[in-house]
Amino acid sequence: MNNYKLTIQYDGGRYKGWQRLGNSDNTIQGKIENVLTELAGEKIEIIGSGRTDAGVHALLQIANFKMHKNATEEEVMDYLNRYLPHDISVVDVTLMHDRFHARYNAKDKTYLYKIWNMPYTHPFMRKYSMHVPEKLDIEKMRKASEYFLGKHDFTSYSNAKSKKKSMVREIYSLEIMDNEGFIEIEIRGNGFLYNMVRKMVGTLIEVGLGQKDAATIPTILESKERIQTGRMADAEGLYLKKVGF
Amino acid sequence: MNNYKLTIQYDGGRYKGWQRLGNSDNTIQGKIENVLTELAGEKIEIIGSGRTDAGVHALLQIANFKMHKNATEEEVMDYLNRYLPHDISVVDVTLMHDRFHARYNAKDKTYLYKIWNMPYTHPFMRKYSMHVPEKLDIEKMRKASEYFLGKHDFTSYSNAKSKKKSMVREIYSLEIMDNEGFIEIEIRGNGFLYNMVRKMVGTLIEVGLGQKDAATIPTILESKERIQTGRMADAEGLYLKKVGF
Repeated sequence: MNNYKLTIQYDGGRYKGWQRLGNSDNTIQGKIENVLTELAGEKIEIIGSGRTDAGVHALLQIANFKMHKNATEEEVMDYLNRYLPHDISVVDVTLMHDRFHARYNAKDKTYLYKIWNMPYTHPFMRKYSMHVPEKLDIEKMRKASEYFLGKHDFTSYSNAKSKKKSMVREIYSLEIMDNEGFIEIEIRGNGFLYNMVRKMVGTLIEVGLGQKDAATIPTILESKERIQTGRMADAEGLYLKKVGF
Repeated sequence: MNNYKLTIQYDGGRYKGWQRLGNSDNTIQGKIENVLTELAGEKIEIIGSGRTDAGVHALLQIANFKMHKNATEEEVMDYLNRYLPHDISVVDVTLMHDRFHARYNAKDKTYLYKIWNMPYTHPFMRKYSMHVPEKLDIEKMRKASEYFLGKHDFTSYSNAKSKKKSMVREIYSLEIMDNEGFIEIEIRGNGFLYNMVRKMVGTLIEVGLGQKDAATIPTILESKERIQTGRMADAEGLYLKKVGF
């Protein structure tokens, strides 16, 4: 069996997220698996480094899959890019050793969130950022972001369904940059729960608008009560940016 | 009468171009005039610095209009951005002296053309660039571009209909930049004929692909025969970038 690593970029706008849902193939995973199954002549399943929610984009998602067929890296890449829709691109294919596993081997992930913080919309980025017309106070947001750093139980900042698995995650860094009208929030951590980045960014936006006091964040984290957290930022501003191995 | 200058940005993707066409208002000019007519309580006509073709974008288009109503710059800007569709934004409104005319006073224009020159599509820029998957030879394109510099009769490089008006235009500069997979062509001139930038870029692409010899450009210019020119680049890669006054 050959084990291929895929580096994928996608505009998540019209998809129900990464993960294949039963027979529906309106997912990134589903679209890629359908093309690879054609190429391989056998049913192919791909393993993503993690799921992205409906509408969320990826600058760099990593996945792997195994097939019996011998095809070069270039052949796999060309075939995928020929048959995939134009909002999903495979930017690299690499043959890996047999034990490479995109999910188990992923050590950390970096997400990028783009907020367009001008009174008018951005005609070219309106589907690739969240529009917040009222001026955000970046300094307040930066101070608030420090409360998220380190290891915490993020139950209140997620919509994860399972109650059995650990909700503890570690945030290594959280940077907020001011970039020509955009506020870009880059978050690196060892893993993220369902909707976690969007709920964290939602809180940072509330703080930036003066609607919430940053000092409430530790209390909300400790409460482990979802009902305490407020706004969730839009999916269209969120990008999976990097997966560390 | 108050004379307002508008600075406008738009994604031209779903419009029939800048210029209002009879009763159809699926044009940028039409959309803006409809909103301004509501604001002014009188029929408003706006003057653009020039027309952009169907599907062509603007990073910075300049226009002006006159109305009797006294409204501050901010009021006009807020009203427009509240009622315009999200793919058209007004980024500045300035009250001008009575004689300011966006078309007559425009001295030069800069257009930007974006080519995505990688084998796979760019998920986020697929509607905002032309995809040329085969590798382009930039050095050849740069040499070819020199033939366009200066004053020429551009009849062969346009689809302009009028035969009475002068087809002579002067190109001040033409730069070709290599920018992380994009080839960006920036052209500044005193004016451009209908489809002129797209026909020039089409020729540069043919040269870059080795399909055409650059040395034929002077002959084609001199022939003043449209039939001699080849490929026309797609509308979606073209942006009006700047208007000089």
